[in-house]
This record gives sequence, C-alpha cells and structure tokens, in this order.
Amino acid sequence: MAFGPQMNGNGNAHPIAPLDASRLKIQLAKTLKPIPAPGTYQFGDIHTDHMLIMAYHPLSGWSAPEIKPYGPIPIDPASNCLQYASNVFEGMKAILDPQGKPRLFRPKDNMERLRQSAARMALPTFDPDALLTCISKLVAIESRLYIRPTMMGTKPSIKVGASDHAILYTIVTPVGPYFTPTSASASAPPTTGGAVSLLAVSDHVRSWPGGTGGFKLGLNYSPGFVPQKAAAALGYDQVLWLLNTGDGRKLITEAGAMNFFAVVKRGDGGMTIVTPPLDGTILPGITRDSTLQLLRAYAQGSLALPPLPSPPPAPVVIEERELALGELTEHAAAGTLLECFGTGTAVLVVGIERIGEVVVDAKLSTEAEDVAAVAESKENAANGGKTKGNGTFDITMTSGRGLGPMGRALWDKLLAIKEGREDFAGWAVLCE
Amino acid sequence: MAFGPQMNGNGNAHPIAPLDASRLKIQLAKTLKPIPAPGTYQFGDIHTDHMLIMAYHPLSGWSAPEIKPYGPIPIDPASNCLQYASNVFEGMKAILDPQGKPRLFRPKDNMERLRQSAARMALPTFDPDALLTCISKLVAIESRLYIRPTMMGTKPSIKVGASDHAILYTIVTPVGPYFTPTSASASAPPTTGGAVSLLAVSDHVRSWPGGTGGFKLGLNYSPGFVPQKAAAALGYDQVLWLLNTGDGRKLITEAGAMNFFAVVKRGDGGMTIVTPPLDGTILPGITRDSTLQLLRAYAQGSLALPPLPSPPPAPVVIEERELALGELTEHAAAGTLLECFGTGTAVLVVGIERIGEVVVDAKLSTEAEDVAAVAESKENAANGGKTKGNGTFDITMTSGRGLGPMGRALWDKLLAIKEGREDFAGWAVLCE
Repeated sequence: MAFGPQMNGNGNAHPIAPLDASRLKIQLAKTLKPIPAPGTYQFGDIHTDHMLIMAYHPLSGWSAPEIKPYGPIPIDPASNCLQYASNVFEGMKAILDPQGKPRLFRPKDNMERLRQSAARMALPTFDPDALLTCISKLVAIESRLYIRPTMMGTKPSIKVGASDHAILYTIVTPVGPYFTPTSASASAPPTTGGAVSLLAVSDHVRSWPGGTGGFKLGLNYSPGFVPQKAAAALGYDQVLWLLNTGDGRKLITEAGAMNFFAVVKRGDGGMTIVTPPLDGTILPGITRDSTLQLLRAYAQGSLALPPLPSPPPAPVVIEERELALGELTEHAAAGTLLECFGTGTAVLVVGIERIGEVVVDAKLSTEAEDVAAVAESKENAANGGKTKGNGTFDITMTSGRGLGPMGRALWDKLLAIKEGREDFAGWAVLCE
Repeated sequence: MAFGPQMNGNGNAHPIAPLDASRLKIQLAKTLKPIPAPGTYQFGDIHTDHMLIMAYHPLSGWSAPEIKPYGPIPIDPASNCLQYASNVFEGMKAILDPQGKPRLFRPKDNMERLRQSAARMALPTFDPDALLTCISKLVAIESRLYIRPTMMGTKPSIKVGASDHAILYTIVTPVGPYFTPTSASASAPPTTGGAVSLLAVSDHVRSWPGGTGGFKLGLNYSPGFVPQKAAAALGYDQVLWLLNTGDGRKLITEAGAMNFFAVVKRGDGGMTIVTPPLDGTILPGITRDSTLQLLRAYAQGSLALPPLPSPPPAPVVIEERELALGELTEHAAAGTLLECFGTGTAVLVVGIERIGEVVVDAKLSTEAEDVAAVAESKENAANGGKTKGNGTFDITMTSGRGLGPMGRALWDKLLAIKEGREDFAGWAVLCE
C-alpha cells in the first residue's frame, strides 16, 4: 500500500497528495463555549470549540488538515454520504494522567479500524499514523474528551456507486453519562460503570453472516433506533441483539452498542467467561480485545485483578465462541449465571443486571408511533420474574443488581491503565 | 395518525407545525446552468437549478417548504445522519406527456414508501400528500427529470439514538444513461432498456430476514460498493445479490438496485414468470408491482402486451416466491430459461443477458485495493462458457443478448403509460 503518488479513479497517473500531518493548519476559536457543569448534560449532546477536518478529491488527493472552530459543514445534497450512507466513524477517549497529560488508549487500533471501515465503504484511503498525529494535536487543545473521527463519501452524484470524494473530520465531546437512567439502577454513581437491563430482540437482526456488523459503519446503528425505542417503552435500557440460526438457536451478538460477556460457574468451582467470536457479525471492539487480554493474563496468574483473589483459586477459562440465549436461560435457572457485562469505549464496562425477552411486533418496523401502544399492552408480561409463559421471560444474575465482581475488577483495571496509573502493554499513549 | 398538534419528544404538548404545502416559498435561481447535450453525462452526475427543502425541529415542527437555488446544505458534524446513517430516499421520474405536461408515475406510492422508510429510521413523520404537492411544484419548474426526495436525521448529538431533528429535501437530475457500458451490450441504444450482465455474489449479503432490505434506506446501498467494484473488475455490470439459506440454497434477492424477474418455459408450452416475494429482504419496488399488475392482466387476457400474442396462446403463470440460483442453472441447462430482466424506476426494464458466479474472496471486504488484483487472477475463469469447474459458471438466456421479448413488451407498455400515451389504473399523474 502506497501513500505517495497513486492512480486516480480514471486510471490515469496523477500526483495524489497523501494525508500529511506536517501540513496541519491551526485556527483557534476566538471565543470559547462555557464549560458545562458535570451532570448538566448527556453523552454526545454538546461539542467543544474545535474540530479537525480535511477533504479528499480524486484529482488532488488530501487537502491540508485543519483544526478550526467547530461549525456546520456545507455538503452537496447529492453527496454519496447523504444518499447511500458511506459513513464510517471511530470512538476514542482522551484521559488525563496523574501528571495532567492527556493519554489515548490504543489509538493505533482505532486508526487501523477506521482505515478498514473506509475500505469496506470503498472510500479513499489514508495514512493512519498521519491522522493520529493530527488527532493528538486536537486532543492537546481539547483534553479529557470523547473523540469522534468521522469519514464519509462526498462525491456529488446520486448514481449508486463508490465515492472518490471524501471528508474526514474529528469532533470531540465532554464525557457525560452515557446511559439515560431508564431503569432505576442505571443511575448508579458515575464512579462505576453502572448496570443496564437488556431487551433481547430477534425479530430485528442487527447483523448477519456476510453483512457489515464487523465494521464500524454509521449504517450499523440507525436500524436499531426503532427497536431501542421499543425496549425503552418496555422499561429496558438497551437491546440485546440476537441472530436466529437455522436450527432454532438465538445467538447473542451485541448488547446495545457494546460487546457482550457472560460469566458462568464451573463444576470445578472455577468460572468460564464467554464472549461471541469475531465472525463478522460483531464489532471487533478495542475494549473487548483489551478485556480478553486482561482476563487471559489473570487466568494465567500473570496479572492481578483486585479485589479478586490472585492467582485465581480455581480455573478461569476464557472462551470466544457462539453463545445462544438459551444457554444463558439454562445457567440462570441452574443458578450458575454469575454475571454478564458489556464493554465499549464510551462505557468501559457496564453490568447487565437483567435480560428480558418479549416478542416485539414486526409492525413496529414500519409504524414507529405504535411503539408505546404495543409496549403498554405487553408491559405486565415483561416485568420481573423468572421464566414465564407467553414467550416472555427474564434472566437475572446471581450477582444481583449493579456491576458484578468480575466486571467491577475489569472496570477498575481498565480505568487505571487508561489514566496512566498502571501500565499494560503500553496501551495508554501520551499525546505529545 | 395526526398531523396537527402532536406530542413532542419530551412528552409535552406543543403545537408542532405539520408539513404545510400552502406555506411553500419559491425563490428562483438568477442564472440557470447550461443544459448538457444528451450523451455527455451519466445518470445522477449533474443536478438542475433548484431544490425543495424543509426542516423539522422537535419543538416547532416543520419549517415552511422552500424551492430555492441548488446548493450545499450546512450540516452539523455531529448530525445523526452523518454519524448513524439515518438517511432515506425515493426515486421518481417526471416524463412529459404528448401535450407537453409533466407526469409522475404512481407518486403516492413513493410518498407512502418514504413515510414508511422515515418511520423505520425513527425520523419525524410528515403528510405524504403535502410533500407531493411541493414536489409537483418543483417538477413544474424542472420537468422531464429523475426526482430524488431525501430525508435525514439532523439531531446534533453523537449519542446513539433516534433523531428528533430532520431535513427533508428533493433534488432533480437529468435522466442520462443509467449503466456505464462495462459490457459491450450495455451500450444498447437508449430507446430500449438495454441489458446487463450480473455477477452472482453470496459471500456478501445485501439483506437478511429481520434486516432492513424491505425499506428504501441509504444504508442498504453503500455496503454493495466493494462487491460492485469486484463485479466490474470481472467484466460484469452489476451484482446479483444472493441470500444463503440454512439448507444450502442461494436465494435470489435483488439485481444491482433492481428487482429480479425470470421467465421460464412450461411443459404445456406456456411460461412461468417468477420474482422473489416481499419477505423483507427486497425493496417493494413500484416498477416491480406495476410489472406484476401488467403481467397478471396480460395472463387473464384483459391487457395486450404487443408484440406478444394476445390473449396468450398458452398459460402465463405469475409466481411471487423464493427463487434459488440453482433453479436458474437447471433451467438454463435444460434450455427452458427464456429470459431474465430487472425492474426499477431509473431503468424501467433492463434485460439480464448473462449471470456468472465466482467465489469472491472474503478478503475483498476489508482490502478494497486488492479488488483489481483478485479480479485479474480470476478473469480467465469468469469469461464466457456454460457450467465450468472451479465453482465458476455462467447462465445464459435462450433469448440471447439484449432485452428479451417479454422484457421488451413490458418496457414498451410501461413507457407508454408513463408518457401518458396509454392509461392503466390512472398511474401517470399530471403535475398541475
């Protein structure tokens, strides 16, 4: 892969400018927005004073990157991104370390995933290291933030096909609470990852074999808005996405926008931690991968996860494999479902304190306005309890409400690493 | 469903303005773009002088619709549409009738489908009749055009969830040739629907039960760009999208962005016309539905489809049912695959003169730059011939190259109806 002179879309040799961090231009905002008090805003609703932006043209390549005041982007109404959703993004966090310097967590992994997402959308390519250099400059101006690199095709044509024009920009937002407290326990103090309830949904399918669920594309998210509204109307915080197999099983893929982990008790007194495999239907989460690496180190006795006993007194087995909802139901009934948790950059680790399943009418998919009515009619069926008749049941964890012991130990460890208080594999990278 | 005062997103009663065509404001462009000569542009690449635009805010509802000069739209970089692809659209054509008046084809169906698409994306709703009134005004200013209503969520928040802000706009483009002549025959004269070759693809899956393929969403299209590039590199015009079943069959869903029809010879001398059913994995095409209605009328003897004999001398059977690729292969081998064609608003009816299948590397999905290399290495295998070893085969039609007799008769009839030269069920609606 070359980032120097490339062939343009017409097959003619042109000098195509690479994404070049040394050309970065910085124009600071003349007035800064007031800093809102913690607790007065939700995740993602407000944005800070600057953004990083650059554009790709098929004949000239990448424009000089610019950091400039946050503001609207003029977009041609025929743009590929508005017509055919050729949008990709990343989520990263900058956290101040004990010395007050901002650190990014495994940022090269985010850059590489963004490059792969762009390739999946047939968008122009870029040098991930050069983009990271530019983002680090933005973070140095706006520290302790959630960072959202975004790229989209801007070819001004409604012909269905790849875009050879693109815009790549990065915006930042303060890290407010991610989950709105729909259920009582979601209002857990922000010093822990909290816990959520999940509505298991199988009539709407988030991703499938041969689909795009393994990439971080904008289009993987909006189809979930209607099911998410239905879940909220039924009193659940998020959706647990299932994939129907031919043999009647319902495989767990993702929880809301998080990867999913279940911890079950073993006959030998140990525990097995199961997460679905990277088969193309789930996002290859960087927090997921980090969690697996920490768990494997703990299982081998090379890493402590206080306050869990170290080394573990009984076997800890890590499995990336298909996980059906029925397996969770069986473990819950047997009292061996210790805990479940979700992982993601925005939330780190979040406990899953309850999973419910209700058959949601297919009608919801076309008539969003009926969500509340359907929800109301099914409300009683969905509340509380263990397995019930009528296709409705709730799975509860032996760890009870809130984040379970394994989830909490992982949350503590990941936060310590992200904040630079502990090191693991050089994951927390200084922005310099 | 009420379009008057509604509840806003916070559950408080506010007067929410409906989409109101009587508030339409028209600001004509001061200078008009030159009209390009036919043959100098491709479908969708150029756009005309005006656009129709309106915006929805959760507290105030729909703004007054405006027809104004075509130009870029300022969009907040955190907008839901850029982050999570909450984009929906429609495709319509305005055609001048013999009296020189523009007519739209079944426009209420497009408006209703747009409303359903918006609901599927949890976007604000609108009065389809009011929107059609506004679009008719735009068409009266810019006649004989392809019309692209587009709607998207513009809530300025990167929190994953439904957008209660929206922009709804309509742009228009001259109707140039839709398909770039990749294969020789695609350069058929524009007075017929022409014909295309299709690469059957099953390792990338366009849609899935429980997915969104049954709605006209922007996000259904961009995942096809990489497979489309692979098809073009192998010498095929478009992709034939397959869905793997649990039992080893590969079901035909869509052809490129068209609905698919196959015509097979029956033992009694008649013909069976098969198209996949509206099971949620394919677009409910308005041209598809029109084609089925015309075919049923022809089969019953109540409609002539010249130059085909009327009434049909032997049974004509119309079937909406699952259609596996293997069934086509068998009919082709037996010499009973008379013809295949695709339908869509942009193309009307297009012949399918060849279907090839090549196993495309899964690697293509992440490394778009390798498409050409893989294509080259497989080029020989993909060229010409009938069933071959190595998992590669071509299906050819007994109708040979170009649009087959049934496809051509349908093309003639649909065009006559669209142009107002013939009437069928009042489909071609005058823009007044």
